[in-house]
Amino acid sequence: MSTREKKKAAGIPDGVIGRLPVYYRYLTELTENDIQRISSAQLGEALGITAAQIRSDFSYFGSFGQQGYGYKVDQLLEQIKAILGLNRAYHMVLLGAGNLGRAVASYGNFRNRGFDIRAIFDSNPLLEGNYLAGCIIQPVSRLEHYLSTNKVDIGVLATPREVSQEMCDRLVAQGVKGIWNFSPLRLQAPEDVVIEHMHLTESLLRLSFRLTNPQAAASE
Amino acid sequence: MSTREKKKAAGIPDGVIGRLPVYYRYLTELTENDIQRISSAQLGEALGITAAQIRSDFSYFGSFGQQGYGYKVDQLLEQIKAILGLNRAYHMVLLGAGNLGRAVASYGNFRNRGFDIRAIFDSNPLLEGNYLAGCIIQPVSRLEHYLSTNKVDIGVLATPREVSQEMCDRLVAQGVKGIWNFSPLRLQAPEDVVIEHMHLTESLLRLSFRLTNPQAAASE
Repeated sequence: MSTREKKKAAGIPDGVIGRLPVYYRYLTELTENDIQRISSAQLGEALGITAAQIRSDFSYFGSFGQQGYGYKVDQLLEQIKAILGLNRAYHMVLLGAGNLGRAVASYGNFRNRGFDIRAIFDSNPLLEGNYLAGCIIQPVSRLEHYLSTNKVDIGVLATPREVSQEMCDRLVAQGVKGIWNFSPLRLQAPEDVVIEHMHLTESLLRLSFRLTNPQAAASE
Repeated sequence: MSTREKKKAAGIPDGVIGRLPVYYRYLTELTENDIQRISSAQLGEALGITAAQIRSDFSYFGSFGQQGYGYKVDQLLEQIKAILGLNRAYHMVLLGAGNLGRAVASYGNFRNRGFDIRAIFDSNPLLEGNYLAGCIIQPVSRLEHYLSTNKVDIGVLATPREVSQEMCDRLVAQGVKGIWNFSPLRLQAPEDVVIEHMHLTESLLRLSFRLTNPQAAASE
């Protein structure tokens, strides 16, 4: 089966997938503000997406607004949560307790959504035994033991570039299927491992592009 | 002129723009490894993009590979750098010297590409006078003075969610046109201000989506 066919089989095109977190975030804001209904036009205005695109996107998961009535925010949000895999908890470990690791561990925005960092490892013996975001920092030598006795879903890599591939390999060897990579390195892993990169530099380049090309930026 | 027409005028579709940083990063790696030529097929294989898509993307900035010969890496990289606005320097200020701010300031990957954090501000008086990535941390009360005496291109917001909009407003009021936002808040700014968000949560949601829908993940 070709890549394209796999995608068709999965049912939801890449473009829609890319917008799901945006919808999720905004719909969560709406429920927090007790807004119960929203039209595709209002959503489009808020998110800079055309109403037609939004209606098309939502139709992929069987959600159809009513003319002049809009979408039910809570229903829509539940559907999107299910598709995004947010109806379960994720056991996470963090590798690297430097600035970036500390920032990720302290970033509260996802911790109450089932993404739970439950162990933290660092190779710096000076950090060993310190607490970070409710976890004791453990030496990296204990990683395999922890992974063999805990079912870990996601490994967060906030390690220096030089060791990221090795750390990724060690996670994967113990059966970790999700890698959230903050290090500026393209990681290699088997096909069944999902790697999500947080590319600070790519984000900054989008910014410089839009500063340099204001006519393109105006449409963002 | 409609949004769509503006985009046409700008000449490069959103999809291509989104891939430019990816091309930039990979071509930079190639030059670092002294690789001088690459075919669209090889590029596609490395980046998970079809060769046809790559040829189409590159044609937007007038770069055409030769059959059986490929693209000249350095030439291609120079063109992409020019489009991305990397043929100039950016004067940056960082607001917030907490974990995230320290991580961004210490992230060396973009500092040698013309993105230069030249002043750092924090509201915590305990941090005042400390050095971070070669800058003295200054009180936020000095922000306007600094901005009025320096031409700042980009403000980096690593502030708590509660104060991010105010800090954004203060940057914009002094003429800063680029905001790199790390706080989990949708910022409001005039149309001529470019805001680039680093959404940690959105990235994590893409990961949980792909873990939950392996058939979609397989094609990434």
